[in-house]
Amino acid sequence: MIVILKKGAQPEAVARLEEILRAKGVTANHIEGATQNIIGLVGDTSRIDVDSLMVQDCVESIRRVQEPYKQANRKFHPDDTAIPVRDCIIGNGSLQVIAGPCSVETEDQIMKTAIACKKAGATMLRGGAFKPRTSPYSFQGLGKEGLDLLIQARKETGLPIVTEIMNGADLDLFADIDVIQVGARNMQNFELLKALGKSDKPVLLKRGLANTMEELLMSAEYIMAGGNQNIILCERGIRTFETWTRNTLDISAVPLLKQKTHLPICIDPSHAAGIASLVEPLSLSAIVAGADALEIEVHCDPKSALSDASQQLTPEKFESVMSNIRKMADFLGRPMGK
Amino acid sequence: MIVILKKGAQPEAVARLEEILRAKGVTANHIEGATQNIIGLVGDTSRIDVDSLMVQDCVESIRRVQEPYKQANRKFHPDDTAIPVRDCIIGNGSLQVIAGPCSVETEDQIMKTAIACKKAGATMLRGGAFKPRTSPYSFQGLGKEGLDLLIQARKETGLPIVTEIMNGADLDLFADIDVIQVGARNMQNFELLKALGKSDKPVLLKRGLANTMEELLMSAEYIMAGGNQNIILCERGIRTFETWTRNTLDISAVPLLKQKTHLPICIDPSHAAGIASLVEPLSLSAIVAGADALEIEVHCDPKSALSDASQQLTPEKFESVMSNIRKMADFLGRPMGK
Amino acid sequence: MIVILKKGAQPEAVARLEEILRAKGVTANHIEGATQNIIGLVGDTSRIDVDSLMVQDCVESIRRVQEPYKQANRKFHPDDTAIPVRDCIIGNGSLQVIAGPCSVETEDQIMKTAIACKKAGATMLRGGAFKPRTSPYSFQGLGKEGLDLLIQARKETGLPIVTEIMNGADLDLFADIDVIQVGARNMQNFELLKALGKSDKPVLLKRGLANTMEELLMSAEYIMAGGNQNIILCERGIRTFETWTRNTLDISAVPLLKQKTHLPICIDPSHAAGIASLVEPLSLSAIVAGADALEIEVHCDPKSALSDASQQLTPEKFESVMSNIRKMADFLGRPMGK
Amino acid sequence: MIVILKKGAQPEAVARLEEILRAKGVTANHIEGATQNIIGLVGDTSRIDVDSLMVQDCVESIRRVQEPYKQANRKFHPDDTAIPVRDCIIGNGSLQVIAGPCSVETEDQIMKTAIACKKAGATMLRGGAFKPRTSPYSFQGLGKEGLDLLIQARKETGLPIVTEIMNGADLDLFADIDVIQVGARNMQNFELLKALGKSDKPVLLKRGLANTMEELLMSAEYIMAGGNQNIILCERGIRTFETWTRNTLDISAVPLLKQKTHLPICIDPSHAAGIASLVEPLSLSAIVAGADALEIEVHCDPKSALSDASQQLTPEKFESVMSNIRKMADFLGRPMGK
Repeated sequence: MIVILKKGAQPEAVARLEEILRAKGVTANHIEGATQNIIGLVGDTSRIDVDSLMVQDCVESIRRVQEPYKQANRKFHPDDTAIPVRDCIIGNGSLQVIAGPCSVETEDQIMKTAIACKKAGATMLRGGAFKPRTSPYSFQGLGKEGLDLLIQARKETGLPIVTEIMNGADLDLFADIDVIQVGARNMQNFELLKALGKSDKPVLLKRGLANTMEELLMSAEYIMAGGNQNIILCERGIRTFETWTRNTLDISAVPLLKQKTHLPICIDPSHAAGIASLVEPLSLSAIVAGADALEIEVHCDPKSALSDASQQLTPEKFESVMSNIRKMADFLGRPMGK
Repeated sequence: MIVILKKGAQPEAVARLEEILRAKGVTANHIEGATQNIIGLVGDTSRIDVDSLMVQDCVESIRRVQEPYKQANRKFHPDDTAIPVRDCIIGNGSLQVIAGPCSVETEDQIMKTAIACKKAGATMLRGGAFKPRTSPYSFQGLGKEGLDLLIQARKETGLPIVTEIMNGADLDLFADIDVIQVGARNMQNFELLKALGKSDKPVLLKRGLANTMEELLMSAEYIMAGGNQNIILCERGIRTFETWTRNTLDISAVPLLKQKTHLPICIDPSHAAGIASLVEPLSLSAIVAGADALEIEVHCDPKSALSDASQQLTPEKFESVMSNIRKMADFLGRPMGK
Repeated sequence: MIVILKKGAQPEAVARLEEILRAKGVTANHIEGATQNIIGLVGDTSRIDVDSLMVQDCVESIRRVQEPYKQANRKFHPDDTAIPVRDCIIGNGSLQVIAGPCSVETEDQIMKTAIACKKAGATMLRGGAFKPRTSPYSFQGLGKEGLDLLIQARKETGLPIVTEIMNGADLDLFADIDVIQVGARNMQNFELLKALGKSDKPVLLKRGLANTMEELLMSAEYIMAGGNQNIILCERGIRTFETWTRNTLDISAVPLLKQKTHLPICIDPSHAAGIASLVEPLSLSAIVAGADALEIEVHCDPKSALSDASQQLTPEKFESVMSNIRKMADFLGRPMGK
Repeated sequence: MIVILKKGAQPEAVARLEEILRAKGVTANHIEGATQNIIGLVGDTSRIDVDSLMVQDCVESIRRVQEPYKQANRKFHPDDTAIPVRDCIIGNGSLQVIAGPCSVETEDQIMKTAIACKKAGATMLRGGAFKPRTSPYSFQGLGKEGLDLLIQARKETGLPIVTEIMNGADLDLFADIDVIQVGARNMQNFELLKALGKSDKPVLLKRGLANTMEELLMSAEYIMAGGNQNIILCERGIRTFETWTRNTLDISAVPLLKQKTHLPICIDPSHAAGIASLVEPLSLSAIVAGADALEIEVHCDPKSALSDASQQLTPEKFESVMSNIRKMADFLGRPMGK
């Protein structure tokens, strides 16, 4: 951490600052510049609050040198984290395709869709039981009943199941779920993150609509600090001024997060664009960029879907997308599912 | 709601669409255009899901004509909503100034700060007991103990108290709090909003970092749909590419929200900019733009604050800001506090 | 175009509006709704200014149904546009790789770099002679001398040359240049676009940092309206709140622009991220998403470069990137260069 | 400037870096940290390109300590710059109101509007002769004829005139114009900025839609580096994801730019929101925040305007806005016009 002093800072103010720093257990190194003086801090600066230094009279600005995330940091954990989910492993070089409807709607719908996903080559099943909807008047999901239907679909197809939690108090309901998803709008619901830190379930953590990659890693850090190391990061589009797409897929996040963290990365092309015809090109781009997993919305009958109808693929379209995904995975030497 | 048909849409596909619309209880009116045909929907379209129409074969696009928020809509509720909070009223033309520290830290700190705020003319007291922090390693607030200290500070000063909730499960702890705050990161924590809908406490609902004004109103609608009409909206800066300020205060939100909704509006100049020296000019701008309330961070000793040190005012600075706020309120004929 | 009338609009105001519409040669169709009346406009609405209708007393809002771009619109020009550039063709299914330094610095530098690019398999050469720099104190490019050095490098390597214009008045200097580039900051420099409309040179038009895809197409429309149909669109990253990358590559722009327009699409992975190590993954993603061309910065000695040092590849690194690009192009059945 | 070294950087690489730094005339000071080493640079670092250091093997990152703008920097020029424009002075504590139509359309329109603006108390007249329009099919302005009409309107009313330039080659046409405006889309049209640097006319420089305040100051620096110190900065709204307003007025820019630079600040509430009813509250907010000038669009008959109809005020509405502006200016002790 580096402290840039104000021009003409009073020696007494600087002395007071140094005392504060000493009390926090770091050493101060002075550099006298031609126009400005600087103090370099040596020691464990992770507990120093930037703001609390900023308000000292003599301080002009502060620059952090080290990343604020530790357990998620590849520097301190160079090897990729691979997360087993029943028969699948996420993060070991394989490619996982998590497919299924936006919402679990009926037994018929989830069973038909799950069987179609399995047949097309999906390796995991998704489906929303608790749905975060912008409007209180929209379909809010089947709740507990939806979770039961997912478990039934897993029995039928063997596919591990992924579904979203919205409330830490519901955690017990998720005891038989394979991967717990945290939605974009809850990325900084810290109470929920803390609750998940006490679980040992794999967590699929989605990046918020206006959150930076560093903030995504800090939210992962919340869960990891609680003791749960099984985090899959998911980029699902960020909010920009572009209006043709629902969000803007930040494809650079894949290779860049791979450099910064050891955690596996998933891409959700369905929410990223909100347009079914973009799912295939974005999926292929994501694989090529290095994504460990894809999460794709598929519905046995999108025209009757209760949510996100325009971005869900039909089983036929999904089969065709999967065929091209498989070819690309083959070309890249990446096995699917294991 | 208006449906724009694809060029060359098949009559059968259009007939199928009309059947769907009829089933939803709306009437379809056709307009034959030179290059494109359009269907205007008449009736209660609030329950029609745009996405579910979008996927019909013959549909090119859909345009909504009516706002999706109802109870928060000024069209259906032309008079301003005024919310009593003990002796204060928010939204009746008066000006409220909610002041206090970012976090409640110690008894001494909150009592000193509360007394200073009261003396300078603040009409309500704020202070965080449950703190949403980006890093799990930062100070997380005193929790229940912080709420108790706030109640003690209210006893001493008579100021109604405002503090943030992060988890619907904690609602019972807030029984003796006057206004419950929902932070920007929880604006779309729908489980929390639903819990607050069942309460009758005034809620100070902060706009998310990347949320539109319409989304803010939809989140208010969640609480109102649950039965709680006592919502104060709060603009606290949105995220942009600008880096000199922590966020960008969207001052236009004040007069525009006043047109769209009957709910009172609060501005938080401290979080908006993250810079203490901007609190005064932004506060004055907000009052002039029509804000019903301000929320300002004040700390008896910012240099020792455990969070947000750089944006909290000293009691002396706050007194000087309040003196100019009072002059402006006088000039505009707006009483303070009642 | 659809006009939504205010509730309780006066019949006289509506009659006046209809008169205005008739005068503009369009027909008005009324739909009486339960809560709101709507007018659908039939005819050539491309000359109607939305704003001029908005201010009529009876109008609540206006919705455009048709795209404002015509010549760039795939609807009216279903076949892909292929643009010949000497021996290369951009937009015919082949893949072009435009490589070279950010700036032309010296004869030695551009010749060495050009030869290395050619050797590695680049199909065109880029290099900046007129440089748009944020600071007036930064290197501004060699100007005319830089263009001459590029022409010399073309003589040596046979690679067609691409370079940026910043001023319509300079157009004569570009007579012997193969493709004229318009930088992101000049995307809405309409005087420059008009000047290029009178030329017949291929134009590589970069999307502005905060421009939508529709605005990019409107800027292409400016050039096309002037008579020049040879436009290559280039996505080079847009500005978001993310700070780890210089910009955010909008990969969705590739497949979506392909749907909306017949013009070829280029991706610039070097400027998009501003990080050399991301050039390879972003290039591969772009090809897979359907890009017709890539523009990659290569410098014979990046460590001594006068601009954008951190995003330029060494010749060795570029060779390795090209080897993977070639494999991907082969796999996709896309010939390079022709 | 501070250089953060990679962990385990080779001593030879560091030695090479130091040699480079020495060659650039700056002194390197080492700080040995517990986990990372840092070099602080002392001397004139304004000519060091951050990128060129970034590519050295041993460098992990670079932090700039000093601002890259010099002539615009208040640090080196503590007194406010006041710019005389005929009888008016911008930046001396007075308040200027620049009013007039978006575009000069006809002699009758500009004369009527100018007289109405003068009568209502405007101190300067605006009007566009060269119009930057998103679509090539929209009205492009009267060009030279428009400038002549403005000069005629000045003769009639005595109001100094402000109008936009789009092309450095047109500068001669602006010889009799009082203030030359650079539009948001041309803020980084560096060729135009250079041309204006050679003029001595006051320049009203608008912030780009997605530009930071620092970039605005760098564009001012371009003009100042050319010798022209008469710059008025103008904030006119930035692009965000919010859709209810055309842009988001960054009101914080007023007090913050006042801290960073000595140049006067203008606010354009008409373009910022694109909504006539917001002009008054935003104008009052801007004055209170410290703006030196306002630029407001007024049209003698907005309903017939050829551009931006929905944001232009009628003369009657403008009179009412001006009456409140005057009261506020009186209250703040700010004279209008001189």
